[in-house]
Amino acid sequence: MTRAPDLNLVPFVSVDHMMKLVLTIGTERFLTELSAYIEEDFQRWESFDKTPRVAAHSLDGVIELMPTSDGTLYGFKYVNGHPKNIQDGRQTVTAFGVLADVATGYPVLMTEMTILTALRTAAMSALAAKYLAPKGADTMAIIGNGAQSEFQALAFKAILGVTKLRLYDIDPVATRKCAFNLRNAGFEITACQSKQEAVEGAQIVTTVTADKQYATILTDNMIGSGIHINAVGGDCPGKTELHKDILLRSDIFVEYPPQTRIEGEIQQLAADHPVIELWEVITGRTQGRRDGQQITLFDSVGFAIEDFSALRYVRDRLKATGLYQNLDLLADPDEPRDLYGMLLRHEATIQGAA
Amino acid sequence: MTRAPDLNLVPFVSVDHMMKLVLTIGTERFLTELSAYIEEDFQRWESFDKTPRVAAHSLDGVIELMPTSDGTLYGFKYVNGHPKNIQDGRQTVTAFGVLADVATGYPVLMTEMTILTALRTAAMSALAAKYLAPKGADTMAIIGNGAQSEFQALAFKAILGVTKLRLYDIDPVATRKCAFNLRNAGFEITACQSKQEAVEGAQIVTTVTADKQYATILTDNMIGSGIHINAVGGDCPGKTELHKDILLRSDIFVEYPPQTRIEGEIQQLAADHPVIELWEVITGRTQGRRDGQQITLFDSVGFAIEDFSALRYVRDRLKATGLYQNLDLLADPDEPRDLYGMLLRHEATIQGAA
Repeated sequence: MTRAPDLNLVPFVSVDHMMKLVLTIGTERFLTELSAYIEEDFQRWESFDKTPRVAAHSLDGVIELMPTSDGTLYGFKYVNGHPKNIQDGRQTVTAFGVLADVATGYPVLMTEMTILTALRTAAMSALAAKYLAPKGADTMAIIGNGAQSEFQALAFKAILGVTKLRLYDIDPVATRKCAFNLRNAGFEITACQSKQEAVEGAQIVTTVTADKQYATILTDNMIGSGIHINAVGGDCPGKTELHKDILLRSDIFVEYPPQTRIEGEIQQLAADHPVIELWEVITGRTQGRRDGQQITLFDSVGFAIEDFSALRYVRDRLKATGLYQNLDLLADPDEPRDLYGMLLRHEATIQGAA
Repeated sequence: MTRAPDLNLVPFVSVDHMMKLVLTIGTERFLTELSAYIEEDFQRWESFDKTPRVAAHSLDGVIELMPTSDGTLYGFKYVNGHPKNIQDGRQTVTAFGVLADVATGYPVLMTEMTILTALRTAAMSALAAKYLAPKGADTMAIIGNGAQSEFQALAFKAILGVTKLRLYDIDPVATRKCAFNLRNAGFEITACQSKQEAVEGAQIVTTVTADKQYATILTDNMIGSGIHINAVGGDCPGKTELHKDILLRSDIFVEYPPQTRIEGEIQQLAADHPVIELWEVITGRTQGRRDGQQITLFDSVGFAIEDFSALRYVRDRLKATGLYQNLDLLADPDEPRDLYGMLLRHEATIQGAA
């Protein structure tokens, strides 16, 4: 019998290690590389087990498990969404995830995913825009300047070459925070007084607000022809950002229709309203942007395969950086059938040491 | 704004800490107390969100997520089942789990659950037998002497007063291992040469074999009247241990019918074959054992609520024992909307230190 050493240990990436990993690689390079991993997985979309997330709803929020597998690796993310958390200094969304080997069922990576989810959401948005935004777009409006806004800006700069930002938030403090954080990132930044002002001259409009309600962040008159809308904030039942009339004028691109119809902007539309699956655009089966007049809408809700890509990416960067610790997560008796014997021998060890 | 300290930290119980926890409390006391936690949760069965496990099947095994919630706490377990793992020194089943606060979605405990699952499975078996086994039963046959066997023996000793064990395994090495591990545990142990010999004089018959196949560990002629069968090993589609004729002579008790009909011994029976839910027995709504002639069968597959009870139990024992470490699992920016700012400030800290 051959035994791999340290079968009990699983690499764990803490929040501290994740921050060091992002800073070591560089945020923009991290976003660019992560986006390439997502693109690769969307190109082999059909090889994945896909299932809508498993959600436990409560009065104050939701806890979800998002599993997927490509037959070789299995990944899942635990993620919560609790808008009221912000009142006592907690994050609205926190997450962690696990990547496992399908052949043995053994986890090969456990990692924080609060920061990683912020990065993958932005990387996904920019990947979609690479196929959908008008050519040469360099100006993006960001409506909602909370935790996700800087990541969106940096991903669109790194992957599409966006250099002009028009920021708006109902809370000017959020806008100042976003502008301050991005002050040395190479953007020309305009802090706007209204949504209307923010969308002026922008070829890309990103909405990323946080309220859990049917909101109308964008109304029909704000969206001219040729715009790409990156709708990130509407991502659960009862939470949308766009007026229905915009949806009716747009070509709508989604990650995974069974999930987006429940969680996305299109929950406002009939269940058979036509949508285009992004993987079909990325594989070249379907056209993305056709012309300069078309309004394209990426109705982003976040799908398990994007987390899977993020887990793969982090795992592939661990060895070179060493930015992880080993967790003693898996019981590893000398003889697999002798779990209780392992306990007894542990007792003997303790008594021997005493 | 009031902020709890150390919002980023989640207590983690490693394999080493779990072993120390079990040894500090004592295996039999741990099983008894854990069984009481399970009993408490079965008594409020109706207050739980229940869902069949979310399974990802592959050629070599299965990876499952088992979530449940009582509205205040949310728990899930990650567990794999890979029979071939034993060939390269890995466990057939490994597991870990998380308990979280429903109000905030924040995890409050992460723990190894390979050892803990072995304990909760045995605690559950003994709890069922407390309601179903014939009065005064002191002799148990254990067919299958692998990793679960000692835990079954100790749970039945602690909770029912079983003191005589009749062990059988197709591999005599497994029987010797089990007998050796239990040599000082206060049992009268008989190592048997056949299944037939093992069941002689036993009021309780526990089957806990591991092959993933339709097996016939018990045939009809081996089971006399009045016996309680604790069928632990048949726990996934295509894996059963009992001849169908035994099922037809037994009153069958199950954890959660929608799951047991897929995974349990009753996958051999019609989908509407009558079964009794154990929680109804534990709450007193339905009778368990009626008389000394009845054959009772606990068709055990393991349900998420039992893992939830186990997570609760471990969490309640942490403070007094200190047997955990804190994991830096949750991003905790000073200002919840300023996740990217946290990264920037981390960079400044690193540069300041350099």
